[in-house]
Amino acid sequence: MLSEFSLIDRFFARRAAAGSRRLKEGELGIGDDCALLAPRPREMMAISTDMLVEGRHFFPDIDPHALGHKALAVNLSDLAAMGAQPQGFTLAFALPEAREDWLSAFSDGLFELAERYGCDLIGGDTTAGPLNLCITVFGSVPPQLALRRDAAQPGDDIWISGTLGDARAGLGVIRGEWSAEQEDAATFRRALERPEPRVELGLALRGIAHAALDISDGLAGDLLHILERSQLTARVDADAVPRSDALRRLPADVQRRCTLAGGDDYELCFTAPATARAAVEEAGHKVNLPLTRVGTISVLEPSANGPAIHWHDAAGAPLTLTLQGFDHFHAD
Amino acid sequence: MLSEFSLIDRFFARRAAAGSRRLKEGELGIGDDCALLAPRPREMMAISTDMLVEGRHFFPDIDPHALGHKALAVNLSDLAAMGAQPQGFTLAFALPEAREDWLSAFSDGLFELAERYGCDLIGGDTTAGPLNLCITVFGSVPPQLALRRDAAQPGDDIWISGTLGDARAGLGVIRGEWSAEQEDAATFRRALERPEPRVELGLALRGIAHAALDISDGLAGDLLHILERSQLTARVDADAVPRSDALRRLPADVQRRCTLAGGDDYELCFTAPATARAAVEEAGHKVNLPLTRVGTISVLEPSANGPAIHWHDAAGAPLTLTLQGFDHFHAD
Repeated sequence: MLSEFSLIDRFFARRAAAGSRRLKEGELGIGDDCALLAPRPREMMAISTDMLVEGRHFFPDIDPHALGHKALAVNLSDLAAMGAQPQGFTLAFALPEAREDWLSAFSDGLFELAERYGCDLIGGDTTAGPLNLCITVFGSVPPQLALRRDAAQPGDDIWISGTLGDARAGLGVIRGEWSAEQEDAATFRRALERPEPRVELGLALRGIAHAALDISDGLAGDLLHILERSQLTARVDADAVPRSDALRRLPADVQRRCTLAGGDDYELCFTAPATARAAVEEAGHKVNLPLTRVGTISVLEPSANGPAIHWHDAAGAPLTLTLQGFDHFHAD
Repeated sequence: MLSEFSLIDRFFARRAAAGSRRLKEGELGIGDDCALLAPRPREMMAISTDMLVEGRHFFPDIDPHALGHKALAVNLSDLAAMGAQPQGFTLAFALPEAREDWLSAFSDGLFELAERYGCDLIGGDTTAGPLNLCITVFGSVPPQLALRRDAAQPGDDIWISGTLGDARAGLGVIRGEWSAEQEDAATFRRALERPEPRVELGLALRGIAHAALDISDGLAGDLLHILERSQLTARVDADAVPRSDALRRLPADVQRRCTLAGGDDYELCFTAPATARAAVEEAGHKVNLPLTRVGTISVLEPSANGPAIHWHDAAGAPLTLTLQGFDHFHAD
């Protein structure tokens, strides 16, 4: 086994140094006590951190290339949800053993995604321990254009990017909760292991969307965060929530569970005024991503028992759902 | 057991919100997809991340209050080593179970230190898993005044703050490698569990010191990082390296091992021109911390086998030391 320093140098520091050609005057990448980074002029730094644990966020047998991709993707997704331009990230991880083949594939998956978004590895830490990955990501955004959770307005449409539920469907196949044809199962597994952060969409929605977040814990739980922060309520057509053809081949109750309460999708849920519908659709075309309108935001009546989502089906009949978001200290 | 959201809200989010009174116009604390933070005008953001794992960086029976302190202290120490003013931090952690008493003490230790430095919790992530703490810390520094590792100059003095070796001595007592009187053992254990980040010193050394770093892995290994990044060599008096009275009561070979190769001290090692000696001593007085001159930096002769530390004793006789820094993939 190579020493920590040799491995880190080989698989991370050298590649980070190659990326550091993008650093601006005065900025500093990996190798010092701190990195030095600045947001763009008149912008702020958007910062998010996510920790991934084996058995909780990925299975022990996950392809390390996919894991490298996913660890960064879930963080870039938070920048996307804020409308921020990715700039850099730090990577801290604990490994039971420093295996070359594992680190090689993991770092390939990580840097391939980082390169696509011009996002430099600027610092890190490694240690021995049960497998754990912690990435903190940095982007730049003008604060007045940031897509905040507390900025929804009464009358806003509620939009969803892409399709929801495939990642949860993949988890269910692996767990044996339901089964799927081989091709559909591969689609689901890909959604679970290689989510695509919607960075371009977040940027395209600056000045158009009011509030946004990424759907990591399930639409029902995540949309509620917007409602709570904005002190508003919502009406959502459960049958309008977009889903893949593969998911449509699973039973209707499974579809509903996966689309409304499934985590790990990393699509964006955002609100925008009805007057901006054409602009939203243009943003979707620009980034080549279907955007679907699923509901509306309204004022929170003083008599209401706090912010809530009022679900209905395609015919307009109310639905009573007891779906919960993905609470990490409970079984899903 | 309370749910994750209740616990996080109670012990972290509410206290973070209290700290967010310090946020400037446009900045955003905990509760959105990203925090928004800006360095001071004409400054850059200094960023560092550290991961702490049970059994590796702390013992399972550590007082959770001390752990909360140490997890943030080791990160603030990286800001100190850069001469940066602390602004905020993110906290990601994995816990085997969410115990109220543990979280209460841990968050107390964390926030007491954060308050002392006006450093706000701006984001985080929690999950179930083997105990793991990952903090990423943010500070502000003018890039031209940052204390970089690559900025040492031939002729510079080498300085050490405080005393070295107590933390390693404490580890040795716990491991049974050596023994100490009860009072000395308590001194060592305190050094190990409650290191003090030298933030004020780092700020006071702006414009005075050339290069700096914090001693986390042992002086021998850490000083070598400065030499490698600056492509220089050093001559150090091993007997001049400052140590506590408690450490002086241990055998001479243990003193040497602890002062030169012991990790977890978090004192600063920095270089400054000989013309700045009075300014360095004034900085030490200002922050009430003894500073000790232990050696000098010199040019790297083309015939030399790379940067190295040439150790000698108080009489000037050369010493051959085979001490290694703290490599996390090897036994210490």
